[in-house]
Amino acid sequence: MKKTFVILLLLPSILLGQELKSPNGKFSLQFKLEEGTPSYELSMSGEPIIEPSGLGFELVDMPSLLSDFEIKNTTTSTFDETWEPVWGESSSIRNHYNELLVELEQTSTNRLMNIRFRLFDDGLGFRYEFPEQEKLVYFVIQEEKTQFALTGDHKAFWIPGDYDTQEYNYTTSKLSEIPGLMDEAVTPNASQTPFSKNGVQTALMLKTDKGIYINIHEAALVEYACIHLEVNPGTFVLESHLTPDAQGKKGYMQSPRNTPWRTVIASKHAGDILLSNITLNLNEPTAYEDTSWIKPVKYIGVWWEMITGKSSWAYTDVPSVRLGETDFENAIPNGRHAANNEKVKRYIDFAAEHGFSQVLVEGWNVGWEDWFGKSKDYVFDFLTPYPDFDVVMLRDYAKSKGVRLMMHHETSGSARNYERFMDKAYQFMADNNYNSVKSGYVGNIIPRGETHYGQWMVNHYQYALEKAAEYKIMVNAHEAVRPTGLSRTYPNLIGNESARGTEYEAFGGNTPDHTTILPFTRLIGGPMDYTPGIFETDMTKLNPDNKSRVNTTIARQLALYVTMYSPLQMAADLPEHYEQHLDAFQFIKDVAIDWDTSLVLEAEPGDYITYARKEKGTNNWFVGRTNDEETRTSNIDFSFLDKDKTYVATIYSDDATAHYLTNPKGYKISKYRVTPKSKLSQMCAPGGGYAISIMEVKDKSETKGLKRL
Amino acid sequence: MKKTFVILLLLPSILLGQELKSPNGKFSLQFKLEEGTPSYELSMSGEPIIEPSGLGFELVDMPSLLSDFEIKNTTTSTFDETWEPVWGESSSIRNHYNELLVELEQTSTNRLMNIRFRLFDDGLGFRYEFPEQEKLVYFVIQEEKTQFALTGDHKAFWIPGDYDTQEYNYTTSKLSEIPGLMDEAVTPNASQTPFSKNGVQTALMLKTDKGIYINIHEAALVEYACIHLEVNPGTFVLESHLTPDAQGKKGYMQSPRNTPWRTVIASKHAGDILLSNITLNLNEPTAYEDTSWIKPVKYIGVWWEMITGKSSWAYTDVPSVRLGETDFENAIPNGRHAANNEKVKRYIDFAAEHGFSQVLVEGWNVGWEDWFGKSKDYVFDFLTPYPDFDVVMLRDYAKSKGVRLMMHHETSGSARNYERFMDKAYQFMADNNYNSVKSGYVGNIIPRGETHYGQWMVNHYQYALEKAAEYKIMVNAHEAVRPTGLSRTYPNLIGNESARGTEYEAFGGNTPDHTTILPFTRLIGGPMDYTPGIFETDMTKLNPDNKSRVNTTIARQLALYVTMYSPLQMAADLPEHYEQHLDAFQFIKDVAIDWDTSLVLEAEPGDYITYARKEKGTNNWFVGRTNDEETRTSNIDFSFLDKDKTYVATIYSDDATAHYLTNPKGYKISKYRVTPKSKLSQMCAPGGGYAISIMEVKDKSETKGLKRL
Repeated sequence: MKKTFVILLLLPSILLGQELKSPNGKFSLQFKLEEGTPSYELSMSGEPIIEPSGLGFELVDMPSLLSDFEIKNTTTSTFDETWEPVWGESSSIRNHYNELLVELEQTSTNRLMNIRFRLFDDGLGFRYEFPEQEKLVYFVIQEEKTQFALTGDHKAFWIPGDYDTQEYNYTTSKLSEIPGLMDEAVTPNASQTPFSKNGVQTALMLKTDKGIYINIHEAALVEYACIHLEVNPGTFVLESHLTPDAQGKKGYMQSPRNTPWRTVIASKHAGDILLSNITLNLNEPTAYEDTSWIKPVKYIGVWWEMITGKSSWAYTDVPSVRLGETDFENAIPNGRHAANNEKVKRYIDFAAEHGFSQVLVEGWNVGWEDWFGKSKDYVFDFLTPYPDFDVVMLRDYAKSKGVRLMMHHETSGSARNYERFMDKAYQFMADNNYNSVKSGYVGNIIPRGETHYGQWMVNHYQYALEKAAEYKIMVNAHEAVRPTGLSRTYPNLIGNESARGTEYEAFGGNTPDHTTILPFTRLIGGPMDYTPGIFETDMTKLNPDNKSRVNTTIARQLALYVTMYSPLQMAADLPEHYEQHLDAFQFIKDVAIDWDTSLVLEAEPGDYITYARKEKGTNNWFVGRTNDEETRTSNIDFSFLDKDKTYVATIYSDDATAHYLTNPKGYKISKYRVTPKSKLSQMCAPGGGYAISIMEVKDKSETKGLKRL
Repeated sequence: MKKTFVILLLLPSILLGQELKSPNGKFSLQFKLEEGTPSYELSMSGEPIIEPSGLGFELVDMPSLLSDFEIKNTTTSTFDETWEPVWGESSSIRNHYNELLVELEQTSTNRLMNIRFRLFDDGLGFRYEFPEQEKLVYFVIQEEKTQFALTGDHKAFWIPGDYDTQEYNYTTSKLSEIPGLMDEAVTPNASQTPFSKNGVQTALMLKTDKGIYINIHEAALVEYACIHLEVNPGTFVLESHLTPDAQGKKGYMQSPRNTPWRTVIASKHAGDILLSNITLNLNEPTAYEDTSWIKPVKYIGVWWEMITGKSSWAYTDVPSVRLGETDFENAIPNGRHAANNEKVKRYIDFAAEHGFSQVLVEGWNVGWEDWFGKSKDYVFDFLTPYPDFDVVMLRDYAKSKGVRLMMHHETSGSARNYERFMDKAYQFMADNNYNSVKSGYVGNIIPRGETHYGQWMVNHYQYALEKAAEYKIMVNAHEAVRPTGLSRTYPNLIGNESARGTEYEAFGGNTPDHTTILPFTRLIGGPMDYTPGIFETDMTKLNPDNKSRVNTTIARQLALYVTMYSPLQMAADLPEHYEQHLDAFQFIKDVAIDWDTSLVLEAEPGDYITYARKEKGTNNWFVGRTNDEETRTSNIDFSFLDKDKTYVATIYSDDATAHYLTNPKGYKISKYRVTPKSKLSQMCAPGGGYAISIMEVKDKSETKGLKRL
């Protein structure tokens, strides 16, 4: 399975101890200990990326771990391995870095703290390690004091730092402008705790005046609080700000223990940021012996009509529910409950007809009448369906059509309640042929005072993920902490939301450039269940009271299946809307969800991204281009194709009249024969884009009559 | 099973609406609504017990529920039922009260709040009820404002109000002296959160200058925060103070919902307080169909030698443990681990020889090396034994001797971790022939910021209790919230600690009058696992470093089996100590743990208590007398005996030289023939007392040579 190739060379610390170069020599990392105070700096091709920056911790009721250190030992080594993910943007990933381990001892306290740096050809990862020791066993972090001293007032693509949500539009501004723009950047959410005018979230995307792209994030967030960054608008120093617990503490630690990795990816080319594997490589290999049960999923769902307000999750309109007491059998239905037998059968039929493997059904279980915003502890039992949802009948009906239902576990943030039911709920799934669950954490967290991104809930998401694996269940957690590459270790984490998804198009809309930024930010940590594929962009067509518009053209919606990488892809619109555009819908049916190779053909954060990806195990390629609010022309060639093979390309593009506001449905579809020499110059409408399927044809005759591009 | 006899009479509210008398007319309750503000007052035989006292709530982010009410309706009714507890101080209990239901509406908000008063022949219970309604569905209590306006500066038997512990010695003082005595009353504990100089806990025992005894407590504490009382030292008004959550809120409510009952028991005779069944009667009938699996338990345990410091719970001396990673098989044992196969077999042999049904073993499972005071989340898995504890061998060995092991689940306060393992842990018990568990909550609660007595943990204890019942497991929860009569509804709650138990005799000692107060305070809510029976009172004999002395004589240790009612009684000392005094030990072997009848022959809180109890299903009686630090003479008669039966009494008393400090082992044992005409005048040493077993003999010849008392 795995081609491993490791050199481990130990060199005298005096010689190399404080400097490290990347395997290709492009990056240089300096570790310094000045008067006992540790710091690091990073440069790329001689250009400083991170200037000398502090390292360490403030602790609760203990002396800090910031100064008074001496170097006990330093070790450098090299690692080079190629590994194969269970699913991914490419079928094999090289993990190649030089490593510097600095072992520090605080002389006044004899406490030990190590810092491990890994320098890759595209950036840096480092973490703190607390080895087993006598003087520092149990301790509580008041704050991590990791700095990223930037070289200037870079352009930043940012969302407000918040302990409970990432569901914000991105603001593009200079670092110095962040405090002044914070108030308008904080838009309403079901649960939100912005903490500072200077606070932003990671992955933070930056661009320098010299055109260098920098990305700062974290990898392998386990049993620790999610990191935010506090921006100093005068010095451009970013400093870590961990998510606190109910008492304002940042982390309960027991040695031996490591922190997550802090990552800095940098390049002169924006595409290199998108293709970097640093986040995955800094995570551990898969923890599971058997991963054969983990498979990418293309699905539809009974969902969008509730999001838009056309239908309801709830079966009745009673003001409050007590599970086990409220009598749903004899309750008056509100007549708007979408998760009913007839509708779900219709979705199953549609999925079977068009080749989707699963059908998500939200609102299937009792408790939705007062699920939200009540700080209610026992909201759902994850076991009891509404009277109009026949679990066994629908399970068997789906089975008969070669389709599975996808489970939905909304928790309303009540983590205790979910954990109490977890084994029963997963067993119920196993008993009823479900193998994937979309979990949700809408609203404030219970235990009250804890937040979505604190150590407590990070522990909970991990618990749910590993518990699900015991039942061979794949997890797609919404409103959970944003991913940090954990899907390498726990590949049943096939999706996350943890950002402003398509649902917000029905809640007032996303900015037209939203999907040109997400791959540089949220997706650095892992795939997103963005739920694209909305063909009807006028929400009043579904719900007269909903004046929202989806800020996109249909062509761009298709492109998102390529540009928003995920092994879990939804066709989010209603079947009847797809049936009005089956020609365009064909791309959604054709597009792959697992890949051998991914290329970035064009990319500029905030403006556009064009990907080409080769389907895993075939010679078919898919190209996607997402565009911002400007009219732009995309120029790509097809040199990635094999000159010995014959391909037919189907281009789904905006037509001349297309515009996300005035004519979102203006698309055209054209077929060509393409070769490595082919070139395309394609207009992209405001809020538009294009998608191309490039299918290998075995028989040249299939290209008869097709123009060569 | 149950003899029920109910009259329900509805009377016009105008007539009786605001006044209520007890069935015997002794107590009178006045409800008043003055200018929209509700209040109540209580009198006994014309004497005021509670003067006009306020009722209501302050709410979070809502107008308060204190004033602006109008009476919508009042209803009175009478209830009279006799029921049989699964276990108890008597085999049948009469539940006889008159009830007044006052239905209130807050005119400005149209919110509904009812108050239900139940007046018994020995006192009052009342609670708030929030009926199903539109205007008040979800709400958060900032504070309950229930007052108990006392008539003067009564003598109080109190412990400091505290969110985390009741393990304090009692202070006896005037109400007005409480603030001045608070600091010295707050002695150290593993987890403690005293909240005010004026705060005391319930059950609060009071005595007026006129010699009236008053007890204030609560009944049926479910899904609500534990109540404390704030004493106004000038006005003698007590006001409710609920235990807050991590955010300082007092209770999350959803209508329909009732609060627990607030109780006031009063009498001119101290014994009536001890015999009152108000707390049990205000709880619901048993929730379980089948209670045949619930049985009183007399047990010994591998416990006291760890408490005294002779042995350790931990198997090794490693500074920190990671379950699943720490290798105990190859670890170096510390040589002091008590829960080892040989020792447990010795205890099993002793239990079998002397008729104990169970053997508690603490420290059997991995994790004790760093279990305590580390705010450690994953402390125990409740499944994995230390290498020197063979679960299957010991299970089978015990079975072969007709004995069961008693499970121990120490949680270190980590409630999340316990809930995650609960099903597995109880299944493990069922698989290994355990049917009872002693659970422990030492240290601060996790989720951090929650406390032992807040709504969060009250919910947890209840969850554990009902989950245990699914596995037919009896629960004895230590460091949990003090009982409130819930054992009527959930009779598998066979024990609680929730007060300063015998263990503190090895932690510096309990006051000599401690056990003359506990029955008037802690035991009002339910039985306590006090773990009496210590024969070796000099701790240096077990551990030279432990200078503590058990402040008792041996005779009094025997008496506690009668005076400290519990269906779960431990013989807490080491087998070798009992073997040195097998004559005295005979009483512990003989004494019953379930009763047909209980009588109080003498009682004065802080001075002495003498109980006589008839064993359930036999004609044997047991008498126990606990004495404070004074030399006192107890004068009792035996008129409770049946004149047609023949009895032999064995009196275990202090001898002339006995003293809890100078000669705790000075006891004598004498046998007599006793009849209803018999009288006893018995000297009780300081810290002493006596115990009497009165066995019916079928054949008069068995009394041959015995003097008649």
